[in-house]
Amino acid sequence: MSQFIVIEGLEGAGKSTVHAHVVAWLQARGISVVSTREPGGTPLAERMRHLIKEVHDEPLTVEAELLLMYAARVQLVRNRIEPALAADCWVVGDRHDWSSLAYQGGGRGIDSDLIRQIKRAVLGDFAPDLILYLDLDPVVGLARAQIRGELDRIEQEQLSFFERTREVYLSLAKQEPKCRIIDASQDETTVKESVLTALETWFVSLAK
Amino acid sequence: MSQFIVIEGLEGAGKSTVHAHVVAWLQARGISVVSTREPGGTPLAERMRHLIKEVHDEPLTVEAELLLMYAARVQLVRNRIEPALAADCWVVGDRHDWSSLAYQGGGRGIDSDLIRQIKRAVLGDFAPDLILYLDLDPVVGLARAQIRGELDRIEQEQLSFFERTREVYLSLAKQEPKCRIIDASQDETTVKESVLTALETWFVSLAK
Repeated sequence: MSQFIVIEGLEGAGKSTVHAHVVAWLQARGISVVSTREPGGTPLAERMRHLIKEVHDEPLTVEAELLLMYAARVQLVRNRIEPALAADCWVVGDRHDWSSLAYQGGGRGIDSDLIRQIKRAVLGDFAPDLILYLDLDPVVGLARAQIRGELDRIEQEQLSFFERTREVYLSLAKQEPKCRIIDASQDETTVKESVLTALETWFVSLAK
Repeated sequence: MSQFIVIEGLEGAGKSTVHAHVVAWLQARGISVVSTREPGGTPLAERMRHLIKEVHDEPLTVEAELLLMYAARVQLVRNRIEPALAADCWVVGDRHDWSSLAYQGGGRGIDSDLIRQIKRAVLGDFAPDLILYLDLDPVVGLARAQIRGELDRIEQEQLSFFERTREVYLSLAKQEPKCRIIDASQDETTVKESVLTALETWFVSLAK
């Protein structure tokens, strides 16, 4: 049965690289893979992504940011992820629901019960089958993200914002049996090995 | 104290004309008036309005439509309506929260408790001081809207959609002491007189 794998983590944690490794590993096993990113991943969701990510003259309220995140997520799940899963493709997502709990909940301080209520109301029980959380000190992650180029509206937040975000990520990751925590402070080769080992162990367990 | 007046009703009910009468009436009394429309009314909210109103190749899910409506509404309330009220301006709005209960709730069939939950979560107790609901049979309203030109994504819905929308409007209007129901099937002069009489009576009651 097709599966939905999500990669979560802070800016600079190496999500894109890990995403590519996961996709290649699955494809090498003859699995058709659809890649997604959030917010975005459909034409309408990408337009919402622009609203979320761009720096605007008008301040984007934290509430509107949260609602836009879920509007984009619903579009992606209904119009891309669910059809792909139904067509026997596996889906590998760069970010999903935990990003809202971590960034809008932890970072922005929106009540996590409210976020879960909105999630449940618009997406029901829909959830990933495996989450790879790339854990990294935000000081390191932000330095890497800065080297990469100009920062978007959210990446321009203060360090304390990302510390609160990481805290929520870690607390979710520790409680969720479907999650594997990857130490993203290791060198690239070691991160890749950790990811592929976690993936293989999980993959084998699926067949049982 | 400055007040927030909202005009609600179906397509073709004459909201724009009534809006102009209300604004003129207030201005004639030396009151500074800010006009708003929903969804929209700020640069970011207008971009959300495009997402809601345009006909897209990708279907906009009913959940995303609802979330976009509230994202636009939060932007408008926080960045335009509240600052205007705080600056002693009155605000006259073409549509507000009832539109979501009527269209997304009645028309689209989204659970009204969920809509109220989202409303309360992102906007708290914020509410209009006076609502003028222009009641009209959707058969008449749609015929008028069609004469006006091309229909947007929502205006293209079936008649039954607007019948459910009107039903919710009427039930809200009958229960809300702040609402005045205007029979919008009357000729333009009589509608104007009904609106201005309702407005005057309410205005006098404010001073007491």
